[in-house]
Amino acid sequence: MKIGVIGLGLIGGSIAKEIKIRSISSIEVYGYDNNDKHGALALKNQLIDRICNLDILLAECDIIIIAIPINKILEVLPALLDKVKMDQVVIDTGSTKQSICELIKDHPKRDRFVAAHPLAGTENSGPNAAIMDLFKGKKNIICEENKSTPEALKQAIRLFEFLGMETYFMEPEDHDKHMAYVSHLSHVSSFILSQTVLNIEKDEKQIFNLASTGFESTARLAKSNASTWSPIFEANSKFLVVALDQYILNLQKMRNFIHEKQIDEMNAVMANANKIKSVLKGITKSPMNKL
Amino acid sequence: MKIGVIGLGLIGGSIAKEIKIRSISSIEVYGYDNNDKHGALALKNQLIDRICNLDILLAECDIIIIAIPINKILEVLPALLDKVKMDQVVIDTGSTKQSICELIKDHPKRDRFVAAHPLAGTENSGPNAAIMDLFKGKKNIICEENKSTPEALKQAIRLFEFLGMETYFMEPEDHDKHMAYVSHLSHVSSFILSQTVLNIEKDEKQIFNLASTGFESTARLAKSNASTWSPIFEANSKFLVVALDQYILNLQKMRNFIHEKQIDEMNAVMANANKIKSVLKGITKSPMNKL
Repeated sequence: MKIGVIGLGLIGGSIAKEIKIRSISSIEVYGYDNNDKHGALALKNQLIDRICNLDILLAECDIIIIAIPINKILEVLPALLDKVKMDQVVIDTGSTKQSICELIKDHPKRDRFVAAHPLAGTENSGPNAAIMDLFKGKKNIICEENKSTPEALKQAIRLFEFLGMETYFMEPEDHDKHMAYVSHLSHVSSFILSQTVLNIEKDEKQIFNLASTGFESTARLAKSNASTWSPIFEANSKFLVVALDQYILNLQKMRNFIHEKQIDEMNAVMANANKIKSVLKGITKSPMNKL
Repeated sequence: MKIGVIGLGLIGGSIAKEIKIRSISSIEVYGYDNNDKHGALALKNQLIDRICNLDILLAECDIIIIAIPINKILEVLPALLDKVKMDQVVIDTGSTKQSICELIKDHPKRDRFVAAHPLAGTENSGPNAAIMDLFKGKKNIICEENKSTPEALKQAIRLFEFLGMETYFMEPEDHDKHMAYVSHLSHVSSFILSQTVLNIEKDEKQIFNLASTGFESTARLAKSNASTWSPIFEANSKFLVVALDQYILNLQKMRNFIHEKQIDEMNAVMANANKIKSVLKGITKSPMNKL
């Protein structure tokens, strides 16, 4: 079997590495990256067996995994599906699903495609960020599962199971709406926290001295790659703007409680926010890899 | 030597435990907590050698460490200093310093007091949150060091060195201003992120399914104790409101870029925010314990 990975960064590189190192059957991993340096690095880091161009990857691979920024997926997916044969499966890993599903909804080979979003990542990027166990115990979302052939769907689910993921099904709109709150909003809040603190604390040495692990935790996502995230924010603009408006409104209320030193009101907000404990417990104690 | 710890939660409990377990000289650790259950738990968890009332602690201890919420420090500190003898040292650990220093600036025994803020913590609270190595490799701030006797100052610095901390000196106003940005703002952003997501995602199961480690990281501080943080927000209201106004303004700008799908502007914000990498590197690779 041959698996082709398009985009050899954090997600694509980690999928490739996991297959190459852990697979028991004989699988050859082909890789393509439009950045030649990334391609060479992925080969050097042994994430893939061979680097090739898109035509060869499309001609030879049984499963094709697309792990590039959302805007690039939208650019390449229709032409890629045009060339796909009826025994091939194309799986994407994009962080928003509505615009992708909408774009190819009438494509004659829509059923060879599986719209997926493995919920895993770190703030690092590029082939050097590829690591083992990135997906282990995490969740995977597949959208519009009925629009893929049962056999394509089965192959995709098997792949994500191999990575240690449990797959859930959601409609693209629900997926994007929820992700606006539980992922994209966190990223914006972290980027802007970082921006605000850097702007004020021009003398970076001072931040270094005073910032503690609490700040590190909330600002961690601000290390994320802009070229990954601006297309996500663009694609999910509608839901993310609603989430941000709510966040800003709640911040403004808390700002006023703090300004007026209204202790009871502050306490009520924080007591409510504390309920996140039980939710976070679920994340940190995620289910074990079933493989 | 006898050391008395007032407040046996995360900070006080961790200081007591560290002294009790790691001290090579013969030190007896006295503990007081206005919550009887916390006192009993601290004794049961062997954080302290004995539990006592405030009068006994004040009468018998050489060093008195105050580790209670800011508003409680402001309540008890003047009366406590009234009773302190000239060979005793009182050290507080409060997260804001201006209101405390202002309150006792004319107290006849001001020089027995050292205004400190060990920059360490977790989102957990109470005696069960007390852990070893909480302070190791972290920074400690002492304010108005010239208002303490050289000998009181020396004893305080030695204590924080024993805990593995490096001490820096700052004026209270500078301390509070910087903490507004690198600690208090992070806490507000995290509390409100959690509140916003919980409000929208009424079905908590959905958050559980979709939230990943990125969300966990930014929402972690929302688990923090309201009774610790509302007095901090109140005491640092002036600087924190300025920081929040700047944060909200920057969020509003980013919200507009996302709404208008202005990719270049989003990228510029994120590229700037990425500069936090070098700062965070300093936090995670904090200097080794010098002891």
